Order: sequence, then C-alpha cells, then structure tokens
Amino acid sequence: MHKIIIGVMGPGDAATTQNTKYAYELGRLIAQENWVLLSGGRNVGVMDAVNKGAKEANGLTVGIMPTNDPATFSEFVDIVIITDMKGARNNINVLSSEVVVACGLGAGTTSEIALALKARKKVILLDMDESDQNFFKKIGKDNISTANTPQEAIKLIKALLATN
Amino acid sequence: MHKIIIGVMGPGDAATTQNTKYAYELGRLIAQENWVLLSGGRNVGVMDAVNKGAKEANGLTVGIMPTNDPATFSEFVDIVIITDMKGARNNINVLSSEVVVACGLGAGTTSEIALALKARKKVILLDMDESDQNFFKKIGKDNISTANTPQEAIKLIKALLATN
Amino acid sequence: MHKIIIGVMGPGDAATTQNTKYAYELGRLIAQENWVLLSGGRNVGVMDAVNKGAKEANGLTVGIMPTNDPATFSEFVDIVIITDMKGARNNINVLSSEVVVACGLGAGTTSEIALALKARKKVILLDMDESDQNFFKKIGKDNISTANTPQEAIKLIKALLATN
Amino acid sequence: MHKIIIGVMGPGDAATTQNTKYAYELGRLIAQENWVLLSGGRNVGVMDAVNKGAKEANGLTVGIMPTNDPATFSEFVDIVIITDMKGARNNINVLSSEVVVACGLGAGTTSEIALALKARKKVILLDMDESDQNFFKKIGKDNISTANTPQEAIKLIKALLATN
Repeated sequence: MHKIIIGVMGPGDAATTQNTKYAYELGRLIAQENWVLLSGGRNVGVMDAVNKGAKEANGLTVGIMPTNDPATFSEFVDIVIITDMKGARNNINVLSSEVVVACGLGAGTTSEIALALKARKKVILLDMDESDQNFFKKIGKDNISTANTPQEAIKLIKALLATN
Repeated sequence: MHKIIIGVMGPGDAATTQNTKYAYELGRLIAQENWVLLSGGRNVGVMDAVNKGAKEANGLTVGIMPTNDPATFSEFVDIVIITDMKGARNNINVLSSEVVVACGLGAGTTSEIALALKARKKVILLDMDESDQNFFKKIGKDNISTANTPQEAIKLIKALLATN
Repeated sequence: MHKIIIGVMGPGDAATTQNTKYAYELGRLIAQENWVLLSGGRNVGVMDAVNKGAKEANGLTVGIMPTNDPATFSEFVDIVIITDMKGARNNINVLSSEVVVACGLGAGTTSEIALALKARKKVILLDMDESDQNFFKKIGKDNISTANTPQEAIKLIKALLATN
Repeated sequence: MHKIIIGVMGPGDAATTQNTKYAYELGRLIAQENWVLLSGGRNVGVMDAVNKGAKEANGLTVGIMPTNDPATFSEFVDIVIITDMKGARNNINVLSSEVVVACGLGAGTTSEIALALKARKKVILLDMDESDQNFFKKIGKDNISTANTPQEAIKLIKALLATN
C-alpha cells in the first residue's frame, strides 16, 4: 500500500517570515495526519521550515534534491533523493505528490504550480496575493483552491483525498 | 562558434488562432535573422506554427520532444532531440535558448517562463493579457519584456543579444 | 539525520528465478538492518521481489518510477517517486543510494552500474557471471566488489558504510 | 523532413590517442554523408575530436551538455543543448540518435551503450577490446555490431539506415 505523499513547494532564500512560519505549521499538521511530506529538500526557506515542522511532529520527510551537494540538504529530510538535474526536478516534485501546496511564491514555485496543473494535479495556494491567485485560477481552473491558513490547507487536502 | 538559439514557447492544442498566426510570423523572422529556432517540437499549436514559419524562410529548427512518439513530432523540425521525459524537458527548452519568447499562455508555457526566470534568462511575452504580463513582471522583474507583434519581439531579441 | 539508503538494481521481466530469490532475501536483510531500500519500483522481477522481501521484514521502501502509470508500480513500494522520465531516471536511482547492489544483469542494470561508477559510487555485484564481473572491474576498479550470496552482500555494505 | 542524426559516444579525459584519432576521422566521414553529428558536447576526448572532424568537413554538430558551464563546451559544437542534468542526459544522447557509435570505452560510454540497448537502438562498437565487445553482444544481441575502423563504421551505419 503506497503512502500518501503531500508536496509542499515554496521559496528558498527569498521566503518571507510568514512563508516559513506557515510552512513550519503546515509540516507539523501534515505529519500529524500521517502523510509523507515531500519537498525540494534544500536547507533554506519554505523547504527547510516545512521539513522541520514535520520532523518535530515525528513525520516522515522526503526531499527531491536539485544538486548532489550535501551542504544544501535540509537536516530535517529523512529520505534524500538526489536528482542532480536542477530545475528539471521540479516536475518530479509535483508528479510524486497526491496534492501540491504552494506556500508563498517565486519563480521556482510558479514553475511547480504550472507543472502540477499541466499534469492535472490539485494545487492549493497558501499565503498568496489575490492577484496571483487569480492568475493561477485562470490557468488551472477547478484544479486550484486557496487557503488562508495551514489549518485550512489541511482541510482542503482531506477533502481532495476523499474524492480521489 | 556556437549558433544563436532563440526559443519560442506556447500552447499546443489550446493555442488560439492569433497565437499560431503570430508564431508562424515569428518563426519566419527568426529564420531571416539566421538564428536557430528551438521549440517543444510537437505538431500542434504554437510549436507547429513557429517551425513551419521558420522552415518556409529556410531556417534551421530544433525540437526538444517530451516523448518518443514520432506521430507527435512536427514535420517542420529539422533536428529532433528526444528526451522522453515529459514536462521535465521544459527546463532544457529554456536553458538552451539565448532568449525565450512566450507566444500565448497555458500551464506548460507558464512553467517554461518560470523556469527561464529561475535560470535568469531573458523572456519576451508576446500576445498576452496585461494582467498576465503583470504577474510575470512581478516574478521576473528586469528579465521580462513585452511585445505586441512578432516584429517587436525581434527588435527586443536583437537588443538583448547586443547586451549579452 | 538522513536515513541510509541502499539501492538494489536488477532485471525486470527478464529476471531469472535465482535473481528474484536473491533479491527477495536481500530485501529482507536490508530491512533488518534498518536501511531504506531504493529500487526502480516496478512490479516485475528483481524490483518487485526486493521490495516484497523488505516489506515482509517491516522495512521502508522507495521506488523511483520510470513512468506515471500506477499499473506498473510494485505494491510493496511505500514511497512512490514518479519521474516519468524513463531510462533517464536510472541516474537518480544510483545517485540516491549510499551503496548500489546489482542483482542479475540486463541492459538497464548495466546502465545503472555504469552510471554509479561514473558518479564514483560503490557497487556490489551479486549473482553475476565471472566474465561480466571482470568487465565491470575493468571499468570500475576499486569501486566494484562481488558477492556470492545476499548475506555476503550485506557484509560488504556494512564494511563500505563503515569507511564512508 | 527530420535530419538523420548519428550519435558518437566515447571517453572524455580518459580517451586514448587512438580513440580521439578515430573519433576525428569518424566526425569527418559523418559530415561527408550529410548526417548530423550528435555527441555529449564537451571539450575533451572523443567528444571534442569527433566534433572537430565534423566541422572540418563542414558538418552540422549538436552537443547535449551535462552542465550549464560554457567553459566545458566544445568549440566545434554548432547547436548547444543545455540539459544541466549530468549523467541523466546520457539517455537523451541515445534516444536522439538513429544509430549510436561507441568509440572507446569508459563508465559514461558503457552507460550510453546500455541505455541505447535498453531502448532497442542499434549500436556500433569501434576501437574496443574483444572481451568488451563480447560483454555487449551478450546484453544487446543483434543490436550490436562491431567495426575496426571509422570507414567500417560508416558502412555499417549505411546498412542500418537502409533497413530502418
């Protein structure tokens, strides 16, 4: 029986304080649901925070690494998958996730949301301006939903998993 | 001496009539400048039209194919590069292009613009709503410019190549 | 603290009875050491058998899938990583493994051993003819070792991990 | 009409003098047949030599680069395709080639021959020991043929293209 994997994507170095605060909380909540957390795995921003949250709640964490450089790996990732294929690994992040949550926004995160929509995955937008939400709703239609808090994101994930 | 490669990205099946009209004209103009045209290479929408335009002006065309299925290859692609890695090949499209032009918009094109910006490539937006342009300007800042016609896009490419 | 990942590679449909018998036993032993098992994840041959063995010993299993088709996934894989990039995913298999064990031989397995050696990974050859062993020793020199039984492979892995 | 692409694979830094001499001659002959030359594109060993030969005979050359570092690109490559995915790009090399010629042997080349065989491509072995040839014949059966000189390799390619 395959485990349920929830992907959380978000900015690295450019993450805001709120991005990482929400990511940390989201990681905790995902772990409490016994879902596996998947992320880009680096030791910065949303990636580091979400893994830290998940580990503090005894979750299982998977990181899909863009490079082969251990100095960039979050210490809170249990299972290190090394792609060494930079941005091309973003497609693996989203294909491997049952549901994708974007927490904050940057170029990398935009590519992940878009690749997820291309693959007809469900995407939840958290901590994002209304104008950015509207952009993605136009592209992704029913596959996009929005959350104002990590708790709301968890509720949405549960509802999406129930209909899968 | 490496040839100059210009990448043109845009919708496949969902392309509008104006998307493909502009793509065809852009292909012609790129070929007339003796630049190599690079695209996603499939036989639909912007991909097919831009390659057709380039070949009618005796250009050289490269297609970075997402699958290994010849039935999906545009007949106007000279050099067929088979990745068989689906959406992950989008990153190759943009890394291999000196300048990226997005002609129209969809989920795949959005991922390519975002991956290009992540890699600090220059991106020209053609045939795109102002609200979508604003989204990408927010993400990409100075690396984004906009064109209203294929001719304007060519002028912008020339200016960008001159400063590279 | 990242978990220790051991990769086991081997033939799919073309696996021999001995290949799968050894793979099953190897999976059990890897799980008993509390190492994570990584494989190509498909529901055939060595991939299926090694995951079955690991799960029967309560191990944790990761599969790096070449396609996006659930009908090809081994039911004994806990964590399904979907690359949808066919043979190109073989490089991820070996980069993500602390030590690579090849159990049996075919074209895919040969590519994985070679990619592992290219990345200077340690590779253990199990259930392989002496002439094939000699081929890989010539290519891989000190990074190649050979085992006659799954138990011997486990001893070699322990020794290699101790010196890492 | 897609151009015919012939892939030549071989060692980089570890290439022997004969490897590069044969590669240079092979590049010349491929260009004289008006086939496009595809290679790993780096500025060392067989990759550099085969592109140099092809350009001196006015051929068209494509390089599938493992990194994004221009300092590693052969100056004799016309069309630079940047994958930035290291060894995973080896699969693209072989999928994109109508016929693959291996000139000399190392870990990278072994992976390319094996990936080609996995994809049921025809592979010609040039400048390789009989024991190594036997290894690949065992794996690849009818898809393997052997040549003692670049001229013989060209004859084999012609025969293979005629039956495709």
